[in-house]
Amino acid sequence: MDRDVSQRWANREDLALLTDFYQLTMMGGYWKTGRNDLQACFNYTFRELPPHNGFAITAGLEQLFDLIENLRFTEQDLDYLSRLGTFDDAFLEYLRDFRPTCNIEAVPEGTVIFPHEPILQLEGPLIEAQLLETAVLNALNYQTLIATKAARIRSACGSDNLVEFGLRRAHGPDGGLSGSRAAYIGGADSTSNMLAGKVFGIPVTGTHAHSWVMSFDNELDAFRAYASCYEDPTLLVDTYDTLTSGLPNAVTLFKELRDAGRSVRPAVRLDSGDLSRLSKAAFRMFAEAGFDDLLIVASNELDEDLIADLKRQGARINSWGVGTHLITSSDHPALGGVYKLVAVGENGGQWEPRIKLSSNLGKMTDPGRKRLVRYYDGHGRPLADLIRLYDEPADVIGPGQPAKPVPFAERHDLSFLRAVWDATRCEDLLEPVMQNGKRVTASPSLDDIRERARAQIASLPEEVRRLRNPEIYAVGLSPRLAAEKVRLVRQAPGVLATGPAEQPADV
Amino acid sequence: MDRDVSQRWANREDLALLTDFYQLTMMGGYWKTGRNDLQACFNYTFRELPPHNGFAITAGLEQLFDLIENLRFTEQDLDYLSRLGTFDDAFLEYLRDFRPTCNIEAVPEGTVIFPHEPILQLEGPLIEAQLLETAVLNALNYQTLIATKAARIRSACGSDNLVEFGLRRAHGPDGGLSGSRAAYIGGADSTSNMLAGKVFGIPVTGTHAHSWVMSFDNELDAFRAYASCYEDPTLLVDTYDTLTSGLPNAVTLFKELRDAGRSVRPAVRLDSGDLSRLSKAAFRMFAEAGFDDLLIVASNELDEDLIADLKRQGARINSWGVGTHLITSSDHPALGGVYKLVAVGENGGQWEPRIKLSSNLGKMTDPGRKRLVRYYDGHGRPLADLIRLYDEPADVIGPGQPAKPVPFAERHDLSFLRAVWDATRCEDLLEPVMQNGKRVTASPSLDDIRERARAQIASLPEEVRRLRNPEIYAVGLSPRLAAEKVRLVRQAPGVLATGPAEQPADV
Repeated sequence: MDRDVSQRWANREDLALLTDFYQLTMMGGYWKTGRNDLQACFNYTFRELPPHNGFAITAGLEQLFDLIENLRFTEQDLDYLSRLGTFDDAFLEYLRDFRPTCNIEAVPEGTVIFPHEPILQLEGPLIEAQLLETAVLNALNYQTLIATKAARIRSACGSDNLVEFGLRRAHGPDGGLSGSRAAYIGGADSTSNMLAGKVFGIPVTGTHAHSWVMSFDNELDAFRAYASCYEDPTLLVDTYDTLTSGLPNAVTLFKELRDAGRSVRPAVRLDSGDLSRLSKAAFRMFAEAGFDDLLIVASNELDEDLIADLKRQGARINSWGVGTHLITSSDHPALGGVYKLVAVGENGGQWEPRIKLSSNLGKMTDPGRKRLVRYYDGHGRPLADLIRLYDEPADVIGPGQPAKPVPFAERHDLSFLRAVWDATRCEDLLEPVMQNGKRVTASPSLDDIRERARAQIASLPEEVRRLRNPEIYAVGLSPRLAAEKVRLVRQAPGVLATGPAEQPADV
Repeated sequence: MDRDVSQRWANREDLALLTDFYQLTMMGGYWKTGRNDLQACFNYTFRELPPHNGFAITAGLEQLFDLIENLRFTEQDLDYLSRLGTFDDAFLEYLRDFRPTCNIEAVPEGTVIFPHEPILQLEGPLIEAQLLETAVLNALNYQTLIATKAARIRSACGSDNLVEFGLRRAHGPDGGLSGSRAAYIGGADSTSNMLAGKVFGIPVTGTHAHSWVMSFDNELDAFRAYASCYEDPTLLVDTYDTLTSGLPNAVTLFKELRDAGRSVRPAVRLDSGDLSRLSKAAFRMFAEAGFDDLLIVASNELDEDLIADLKRQGARINSWGVGTHLITSSDHPALGGVYKLVAVGENGGQWEPRIKLSSNLGKMTDPGRKRLVRYYDGHGRPLADLIRLYDEPADVIGPGQPAKPVPFAERHDLSFLRAVWDATRCEDLLEPVMQNGKRVTASPSLDDIRERARAQIASLPEEVRRLRNPEIYAVGLSPRLAAEKVRLVRQAPGVLATGPAEQPADV
């Protein structure tokens, strides 16, 4: 990873205003009502995995930390805010000196993660934690989504080469830039995106376009010219007709190179038509010419299902170029991650847990500052995760200990109890990463993050990894957290106090 | 629109490397084989509308022009390219002095557009046109997609207020920033995105979050505090329970304000539950308290279908907050726009049309430099569009003239012929916008672009505008262009020369 920070995402401009209007009006409100010092704890979680997914892969933290470390309201920002006419001058003066002071614990990038788990826990002044909400969500939702999609596609590719080339269909420059980063974390081997190559040090690869061929009078001359420029040419063979023009010309070219004594592995790219049939034909045509190591790169609206299907058909493809469906996670283009207040406290005082209710059960939050614990068997395989209160004794549910069932059945079921019983080791997943608005740990390299993701996925049971109907990994609430949740639901205004029977009858 | 260019998209960093690796290897190849001076003409088009759409709205040009005007390879870029080991030093020296010199014609932003139409036509050295491909696609594909989606949602909202607040689910900062711009062009009234407010001058709006309520000891105090800070508070009423807590407290608050003599239009936001039922209940509860002008903002995974359905149910909602489904165009998150070589020429010489064939008919390109003509009836309603060769006489198919049928039936059918016959006026849609790499026209303001989109959509026949099964707007090829296409298909290697019968039998 290129550590030249001047080129990194969050430093490219002043991003204090990468936030929603209501964050600023709430900040103004907290400030005006003398609540600057109120401390808050927020959790970033997501509610549902993308369809057919058994797990997700965390990504996007480094960019978020960059943003927080560099966050300042510039004169231009303040000028703009002043012109809106919504904010007091005194509040804008407060913003002029505003610097983040929050503490953050987070599950490292490249970690396997599941719904409802606290992936990031931020503590700091409510006024600041509020401002940062949008940036947290913008950074983590998208990159986690793409790393997760890349892991699926990687899984379909097996040990084949996987190239991400989605920049042209990405949602703006950053859709491409941070998407390429996340795709690499999730398992892509390289990208076509030069900016991602430069900024993040991701390997860059590519072939050539139809326009190269069309700019010459004939296809063979185009291939010859390309091979004269680059040592290992991959020839795009579908500009006119793959079987009757592109492949025969490619065979001719690689024969010419062989005759000229150049030791080159022949390589072609198929970008349209029946990829299974064409790849077999290509393999055979090259084999007949004495080449038995043809490298076939395939592209054309590929995703994990098409790749898996092509492999089932015995397609002779050994490198997969995936664009649109990877960089946009096209079947599910947004991760519904949320960032919710879970506790408030006076400076230096006790934390009070808070809950948000909802008629949608999945939208109800888990209250309180938390820890996230993962249980492993003797082979290092994850068995189940436990969400527990921060100051609960570590052995509240230790490996090999039975746990009492609690009333959140869907999140703490028999499989969870059984898993914990079988565990030999457990680990806290949330690690302290920022204190007082500054990083307290070194940033891992992108390759280390990618390797972590690979190892994490490999350690999962096969049933959780499969591409259709994966087994649901057990995630439980500790008995104390569950009890706290019940207590707060009972105390909350409206719901249990009055109950449905007392609702207006005709609404 | 804020004209301070230092804050605009393409100026935020050096974006010469916002491109694919293969563009640079092709550039290197053109340079090495002495083809620097070869001139090329490329067309940006898209092949298919998003599902259920009768039209698209162009967007993204201004950001692209910014990028081209400012394009330079920095020392850092050259350093990075050098380290890759792929490129000759002499080529890198060439890049050091590289400046765009292209000419561009484009259909203005905010124009209604259809599949296969040339939306942008770029002429310049092939080596440069190649480099720009990725930036063209990155800028235009995403913004056109989002402007088009916004137009659908706008259509479902009727004259209600439409707020875009997708930043937290957008694909990175630019997914948010350029997405907010495109959503505004397509018909959103405002955004929650402060950066988009600052950079593009889009109106910003918002309410408050659940965390505001949760940070107080009770909901009513939270509402009171918010109303003490801002003149026109919109209260979020679903933190605990909408019917039994949020709405009663909101009624109490607005009564208190009324009693205190504050003239405030009451406003609430519903963010969960049955929005139809809750909006009717809210309206009634406020009406019973003497407020008959309640403003109800609704949000929660809304899209054009849900909005249309809620309106059919008589929901009392008059402001719609749309996030995820707008900013990602979630049911179709990528526009498949392409940028294809259509002609080559020596500097100062004749243009030679080029074609790309494909076994997928839709992937075959229309050859040659072109014009795009729109025909109107006497009321200024668009009737049909014609794609024709650049130097074809203007009256090749004039209004009121019969045209000969040509062999591309699906693109030049009876409805087209009939439409042209009825036309009273026609107009060239491609306008010269850049010459020698510099803008030659003033940038329209964002509000002008938005107004253009509104007027364009309003002028379309209702059948083309509807949200399901829209009528297909007629787009034809001129007889000469069609004939040229047939000629090039016949001449192209592989296809007609050998034909399917001569293909290897067993592939």
